[in-house]
Amino acid sequence: MIKIVKIGGRLIEEETVLNSLCDKLAVCCPSGVLVHGGGSMAGRLASRLGMEVRMIDGRRVTDRQTLEVAVMAYAGWANKKIVAILQSRGINACGLSGCDLGVILAHKRFSGEIDWGYVGDIDAVKSESLRMLLDAHVMPVISPITFDCRGQLLNTNADSVAAAVAIALSRICDTELVFCLDKPGVLADVSDDSSVIPVLNEETYREYLEKGWIHSGMIPKLENAFKTLKAGVKAVRLTDPQHLEQGTLIYQEK
Amino acid sequence: MIKIVKIGGRLIEEETVLNSLCDKLAVCCPSGVLVHGGGSMAGRLASRLGMEVRMIDGRRVTDRQTLEVAVMAYAGWANKKIVAILQSRGINACGLSGCDLGVILAHKRFSGEIDWGYVGDIDAVKSESLRMLLDAHVMPVISPITFDCRGQLLNTNADSVAAAVAIALSRICDTELVFCLDKPGVLADVSDDSSVIPVLNEETYREYLEKGWIHSGMIPKLENAFKTLKAGVKAVRLTDPQHLEQGTLIYQEK
Repeated sequence: MIKIVKIGGRLIEEETVLNSLCDKLAVCCPSGVLVHGGGSMAGRLASRLGMEVRMIDGRRVTDRQTLEVAVMAYAGWANKKIVAILQSRGINACGLSGCDLGVILAHKRFSGEIDWGYVGDIDAVKSESLRMLLDAHVMPVISPITFDCRGQLLNTNADSVAAAVAIALSRICDTELVFCLDKPGVLADVSDDSSVIPVLNEETYREYLEKGWIHSGMIPKLENAFKTLKAGVKAVRLTDPQHLEQGTLIYQEK
Repeated sequence: MIKIVKIGGRLIEEETVLNSLCDKLAVCCPSGVLVHGGGSMAGRLASRLGMEVRMIDGRRVTDRQTLEVAVMAYAGWANKKIVAILQSRGINACGLSGCDLGVILAHKRFSGEIDWGYVGDIDAVKSESLRMLLDAHVMPVISPITFDCRGQLLNTNADSVAAAVAIALSRICDTELVFCLDKPGVLADVSDDSSVIPVLNEETYREYLEKGWIHSGMIPKLENAFKTLKAGVKAVRLTDPQHLEQGTLIYQEK
């Protein structure tokens, strides 16, 4: 079983949290894959550079300058910082963006008449490249920067990258996709961290949904989890970085 | 024979020059190693961020912010841009910084009472990691960002990285170190690009030095070339990116 662990936001930006997560990874899944976002790093850099954020319908447009900032923040600083910390913990990590080893091929998003800029939707994950690294006991650490076949870098959602990597690797071996959150899992009562729902399948999910235990931001996360399971991933886990083997385990009845 | 090609400066910053260099690499040395600097990219980013450059004795001090900018510019933008272009030319490139696969271990420079900041001097190159990639027909594309055993990223001179990589690989196979310059090679007459000295060994170098054909900036480059040859590299070549197999070939008499 290979674990694909997705981290983002605060986990990457706070040095002590990141250090402690890397300690956990060294123990729990030294042979896994790490996928990271960059939190608000790129946004902060853009604002320090005095760049204007262009929005359409509340969604950010990734123009050339915004892409450059995203590549610098995610593929540069975030990726290399994480890899260096993992190496210092004895994990032979290798930072990758989609272009490296051609690992994640994407295309520029088309959506009617709106040009979202350099945003990439994933076409393919080259699992044989990841396998080469995993077979050599290397932990791939993947940033959400992808590329297209003409050599254009693209900015991609990190959750989508993690899901695509888990699905692609599930054709080689059993995979578990772990999303690290701020919360210890899916909570039956949002205000009570001890109310973690330990196990969910599609049946209990529908049941809890009706009861009103699951709502707002958790719904798309769980809907995506079930899609990922249908595509071949054995289990999806939602947890916090302190409990990589606990939290909420989501699986599909066979 | 494996070629280790070092590029920097203008070659990286001008898109058309970089595209044409990548075309050349795809033909001349699809199984080589590329080492790049970042030209004035990091300096420009620092100045856009309003950062002050701290100098001691005319040399730049790499404080924490300067390091962050160097990592973003070199390991991020420059490295990923080059890799994406190479991939689009059919070369299976993989961008690496020193921390990736633990490939270049360094230590923070100590020099008497002056703290140069996060500048790294190289301790070791993990040639087995590079060999794994080369055996899989992957072209490693290496940025000059290294790291120390405690997980600290460091900024290192790209020429030194290229030389250290060539020396380490020379224990596995024959290596040629190619420095891409603005000029087509070592010129007997600096103002005449057609006066390239095609071959140099230590004897002819001393001879031309006495004649005054070789001077100023070329002297340290050539002195370093002879050091690299003594450490096991078969040949060093100084050329421009249009003529990767021409220029000036420097070798050592056996």
